[in-house]
Amino acid sequence: MQVTIPLFGRFTALDAVGPYEVLQRIPDIDVVFVGHQRGEVRSDNGMLGLSCDARFDELPRPDIVVVPGGIGTRVLLDDAPLLDWLQKAHAHSRFTTSVCTGSLLLAAAGLLDGLTATTHWSAVELLEHLGARYVEQRVVEHLPQRILTSAGVSSGIDMALRLVELLVDTEAAQAVQLMIEYDPQPPFDCGSLAKAGEAVRDRAAQLRR
Amino acid sequence: MQVTIPLFGRFTALDAVGPYEVLQRIPDIDVVFVGHQRGEVRSDNGMLGLSCDARFDELPRPDIVVVPGGIGTRVLLDDAPLLDWLQKAHAHSRFTTSVCTGSLLLAAAGLLDGLTATTHWSAVELLEHLGARYVEQRVVEHLPQRILTSAGVSSGIDMALRLVELLVDTEAAQAVQLMIEYDPQPPFDCGSLAKAGEAVRDRAAQLRR
Repeated sequence: MQVTIPLFGRFTALDAVGPYEVLQRIPDIDVVFVGHQRGEVRSDNGMLGLSCDARFDELPRPDIVVVPGGIGTRVLLDDAPLLDWLQKAHAHSRFTTSVCTGSLLLAAAGLLDGLTATTHWSAVELLEHLGARYVEQRVVEHLPQRILTSAGVSSGIDMALRLVELLVDTEAAQAVQLMIEYDPQPPFDCGSLAKAGEAVRDRAAQLRR
Repeated sequence: MQVTIPLFGRFTALDAVGPYEVLQRIPDIDVVFVGHQRGEVRSDNGMLGLSCDARFDELPRPDIVVVPGGIGTRVLLDDAPLLDWLQKAHAHSRFTTSVCTGSLLLAAAGLLDGLTATTHWSAVELLEHLGARYVEQRVVEHLPQRILTSAGVSSGIDMALRLVELLVDTEAAQAVQLMIEYDPQPPFDCGSLAKAGEAVRDRAAQLRR
């Protein structure tokens, strides 16, 4: 089974690496990072380089697509090579999925037309502008349409565990959860807009994005 | 403030990228991935390449060190350039930290002698053999010694939020939690040995490591 994770300039690293870490644990799954060209692309802030090992045109029929987000998505909303690849890949994939603002790219490719979907809380209006109906959920599944979208950055880990359950079985997903010791104990409880107060939201506006 | 994350062949990607994603959100923090040589290193299974942007000898005095784990740690337990760099870096760092089996390298450098520490559940014996006293906790702090260790793979996210609290303040850490939407909702509750039953543990033995 082949999982492809498209990368592009100014992607958010955890969006891509969270699902990678979960999915690659399954011995039958190969994960390939794919891009416009082979070679290094840099994350949103430029501090981290990841390697693309294949071009989009080299991998036309992945079984699974996981599209990460990042500020770099904004300049790809009319990028024909990427959107065309997404459309064609989705015609044959078992699941086409996104993390964070990766859903903007699925929407721009027309894959979310009329569907409910999620994204990072800062990109809700743009997602709706692109034709999806936003719902405030950590993971949104459309199994008949073979589409899953997940919320901001870290949510890709939760989504990927669910993907393993869909692709293999529940026990396999539980075994992966144990292997990556995903027994979250965040020291605070501010991980969503609803839970964070106004002061925390204001402070978030001062962070790097 | 400079955070350095050492990389080496066969590291576990989420160990490194989880803390990176948290720490880089703080505008005053620069994260640098460092290694024996500049250039690409590949993750445990070889499916992902990350770039080292500096050599150990180029960054002798980082403010923060975050050592990831991975099966590649096992061949570094007597690697003089890395262990020497860790010892010297720790002499001046504000905090020296590890994720997963990264604690084996801190122990091999003598930094955990007689201290309590944690690691991935599969490496407990080796950690103790190297002179640390294992405790089953997600994050183990020694503030006077400026050492934090965290458990398997995903625990680095929790540890890094605590680090932001120590380095900046609680609200900054909460703001980062909101930005990365770390409101975990794993579909199962098998993320520790204590929570996983025997069948899940047996299944975990069949996964890639």
